[in-house]
Amino acid sequence: MSDGATTIVMVLVPQVTQLDLTGPAQVFARWPGAHLVIAAARAEPVMTDCGFAIVPTATFDTAPQADYLIVPGGEGVFDVLSDRRTVDFVRVQARGARVVGSVCTGAFLLGVAGLLDGVRATTHWGSMRLLPLVGAVPTPSRVVRDGRVVTGGGVTSGIDMALALAADALGEQVAREIQLAIEYDPEPPFDAGSPDAFPEAEIELRRRAIEDRRRARVEAGMRASA
Amino acid sequence: MSDGATTIVMVLVPQVTQLDLTGPAQVFARWPGAHLVIAAARAEPVMTDCGFAIVPTATFDTAPQADYLIVPGGEGVFDVLSDRRTVDFVRVQARGARVVGSVCTGAFLLGVAGLLDGVRATTHWGSMRLLPLVGAVPTPSRVVRDGRVVTGGGVTSGIDMALALAADALGEQVAREIQLAIEYDPEPPFDAGSPDAFPEAEIELRRRAIEDRRRARVEAGMRASA
Repeated sequence: MSDGATTIVMVLVPQVTQLDLTGPAQVFARWPGAHLVIAAARAEPVMTDCGFAIVPTATFDTAPQADYLIVPGGEGVFDVLSDRRTVDFVRVQARGARVVGSVCTGAFLLGVAGLLDGVRATTHWGSMRLLPLVGAVPTPSRVVRDGRVVTGGGVTSGIDMALALAADALGEQVAREIQLAIEYDPEPPFDAGSPDAFPEAEIELRRRAIEDRRRARVEAGMRASA
Repeated sequence: MSDGATTIVMVLVPQVTQLDLTGPAQVFARWPGAHLVIAAARAEPVMTDCGFAIVPTATFDTAPQADYLIVPGGEGVFDVLSDRRTVDFVRVQARGARVVGSVCTGAFLLGVAGLLDGVRATTHWGSMRLLPLVGAVPTPSRVVRDGRVVTGGGVTSGIDMALALAADALGEQVAREIQLAIEYDPEPPFDAGSPDAFPEAEIELRRRAIEDRRRARVEAGMRASA
């Protein structure tokens, strides 16, 4: 921040749900005066959940201190919850950041790094009931703010979250300009973006399958981090 | 398609507006039985408009024949409109494709490749009035279909477009499942995603600046392609 720019660091882990990162990145890249950093454990391209790789712009060792630290989600997040280097990167960066945020299941990496204890937070609907494992207070909403912590719901919520952060930081007029530039006037083809649009019994089955797949990794992460 | 999979080829050009590609890619990657290919001129990582690079999964020489050929947009599209190899790739792939599509200003690459002559199409609002230069009939709408050609408006429209294509190909139920998985229940913070939300005089100034910046490259592309 020595030059007055706002440094936004997004954490890139293998098997990230790439839209968790790329949606907000499109907004962040258009913040006047912002410097967007994509930080990964190593300098090599990182494979996403969509079969193509993204090249980080910094490593955990070379990334500058973030003003905004944003953690995208995805199945891959659950694989790094016991990875000390990744968790430490988030923890140490968060100490100096003005805003700490997550998209989707990125919340669990924030949580294992100790950043959600007693904090109201959201995540992907399928993992919402796992949030108490990291000390968070589940708060089903598209974007949730609690102090300096901002969390987004599943995947596409990251776009809404980034625009909201832009409005906070730069004012509504700048955020509106960015929204116009990316023509964000969504017309989802169906009423199907929320579990409320589906039969509860179906959703419950899916929630349990997701929880069964992920719970042990969250618990292991919390033990490793303790 | 020899194994029955649907091959979806997305064209990656330098300085792509990355969300034009990554938004729909998140949907395409979840199509049951789809094979998503990110094709670029060379195998090396391609820099996006957001300061990070994406690694293509195929080159124009190695990409399989597309069932769906999708061209994302961005300022970089205007730089390749006279690049014979890129235009030829689109033209030749389109011959064998069931569906030919674009997001945002990707429409101009389709157009220079001869695919929009007399076709109803949309693009980013800022470049809508340039569409007749490539023979297209400007049709301001978020997603426009005309025969096998589908075009999306600016940037984020690609998500809506990809979900609509999923519904066409796989049925509404599958598309609804994908929409739920990416929790696409958007809550844009402002009414600012369309030029209609801004004073017409302001928008007109911006349209002219965009047109001035891009017109010559579209015209040069059409001459080179003739």
